[in-house]
Amino acid sequence: MKRTERVGAIVRILSGQPNRIYSLNYFCRLFNAAKSTVSEDVSAAKNLLIQLELGNIETFAGAKGGIRFIPSISAANEENLLGELCKKLRDGSRILGGGFLYTSDLMFDSHIVGTAAEMFAKKFQECNADYVVTIETKGIPVALMTAHMLNLPLVVVRRESRISEGSTVSINYFSGSTDRIQRLSLAKRAVEPGKKAVIIDDFMRAGGSIKGISDVLSEFDIRVVGTGVVIAAVEPRKKVIGDYYPLLYLGEVDEQNKTIEVFENPNRDTIGNN
Amino acid sequence: MKRTERVGAIVRILSGQPNRIYSLNYFCRLFNAAKSTVSEDVSAAKNLLIQLELGNIETFAGAKGGIRFIPSISAANEENLLGELCKKLRDGSRILGGGFLYTSDLMFDSHIVGTAAEMFAKKFQECNADYVVTIETKGIPVALMTAHMLNLPLVVVRRESRISEGSTVSINYFSGSTDRIQRLSLAKRAVEPGKKAVIIDDFMRAGGSIKGISDVLSEFDIRVVGTGVVIAAVEPRKKVIGDYYPLLYLGEVDEQNKTIEVFENPNRDTIGNN
Repeated sequence: MKRTERVGAIVRILSGQPNRIYSLNYFCRLFNAAKSTVSEDVSAAKNLLIQLELGNIETFAGAKGGIRFIPSISAANEENLLGELCKKLRDGSRILGGGFLYTSDLMFDSHIVGTAAEMFAKKFQECNADYVVTIETKGIPVALMTAHMLNLPLVVVRRESRISEGSTVSINYFSGSTDRIQRLSLAKRAVEPGKKAVIIDDFMRAGGSIKGISDVLSEFDIRVVGTGVVIAAVEPRKKVIGDYYPLLYLGEVDEQNKTIEVFENPNRDTIGNN
Repeated sequence: MKRTERVGAIVRILSGQPNRIYSLNYFCRLFNAAKSTVSEDVSAAKNLLIQLELGNIETFAGAKGGIRFIPSISAANEENLLGELCKKLRDGSRILGGGFLYTSDLMFDSHIVGTAAEMFAKKFQECNADYVVTIETKGIPVALMTAHMLNLPLVVVRRESRISEGSTVSINYFSGSTDRIQRLSLAKRAVEPGKKAVIIDDFMRAGGSIKGISDVLSEFDIRVVGTGVVIAAVEPRKKVIGDYYPLLYLGEVDEQNKTIEVFENPNRDTIGNN
């Protein structure tokens, strides 16, 4: 194979599984090429990814050496996604009454949640989390894509314990959205105690569900090291959780005039915003 | 940019969004290169993908011309996935009683569901479906990844109608797994009438849930053109649906001896198996 083909194959294989470590030997065998040749190929792949803001390749030296793809997203692509999402969310026909908006089409769109996941992966890449955790149902796609980008297992907290989950730990929490007590459950086999988790969800109002997830995780001695939500409501100003990282804010929903106020998180790039 | 870099970038961009059509002009602008140059780059990219069984690139000529990445999976990678899945599923500690197995860790693993989705995408690529449809909760990850591969919207049928879904159409169906009547709902805004759908789910016993999905879709005049499940139970032999395409079969689950019979679908490659 020629260099062009080897570089293309390296890009395809690494970017298909972000954050998974591949040994240089894997590619030496695949191409039947010397280590020095593959090293140069990897440099070429890394350069083109950085130049076009399509990601990065990290190299580890030594016995446990290897390479991995670090997902990234260009500022232009972030703006495109958030602009598109704002525009779609401002469509007055999404208003369902009671302040609720129809967002399932957006949260089940693999392109939208994939791009949102790239933003969360960039934000939480350095957290060294062991799990991405969400609650069923609408948060699952964006959380799965984030787990894919970070190469972590996804853990889904359930609203009711089902027989297919085995024994579970359940807690009750107050949901501001539905104005009542809700229950959530986590399978005992789903996590190992003492680990770290990033919580990802589609929407947050006061933060009751996310606090619920956090509480059930603490029953397993799991620490939350980051929380990302696609949309956070401006009201209530006082949230029941401290740190969270929203991509968008939902302001006033005017049912009479069919207008919806949505804007980008102005502090999106601030370090420590989460 | 050099050819090597352009080819790497084409591979990265196309394979990041399977089945999405990009114009040649998009790459001409990105690289500031002539159309003839980009055409040669695309040929090089296509050749390396085919040679290493990493996918394909399809070219459309004419005014609406463009290129798109067709996902694929090598026979070796299929065998690896199915072998790994069988091995993990045979672990006796998965037995929950009542014939149920704990599979959430597998169905929420982005690598496993991503590879399964490549197999479904290969199978259903030619169906010209408009939607990938699943039912909450455990089928969502594999269905989302399949939707991503086929560049289709994902539609999730819910077990209860929630306020955030707006008005819904609901049906009742008999679930063999739970031995009782269950309800499922689909938001009226989720689909357009007259379209075609592929159903993807994690597990099927007699097929009651999938028949339920199919029945609710027919209320919207939507035709099911393919059904894929990761695991189908051998028993009951008589299913309530006709055509389905399982990756694996689950045979006898012996609770006393803690043994689980799992094997690959022997007719996996047969055309028209679905």
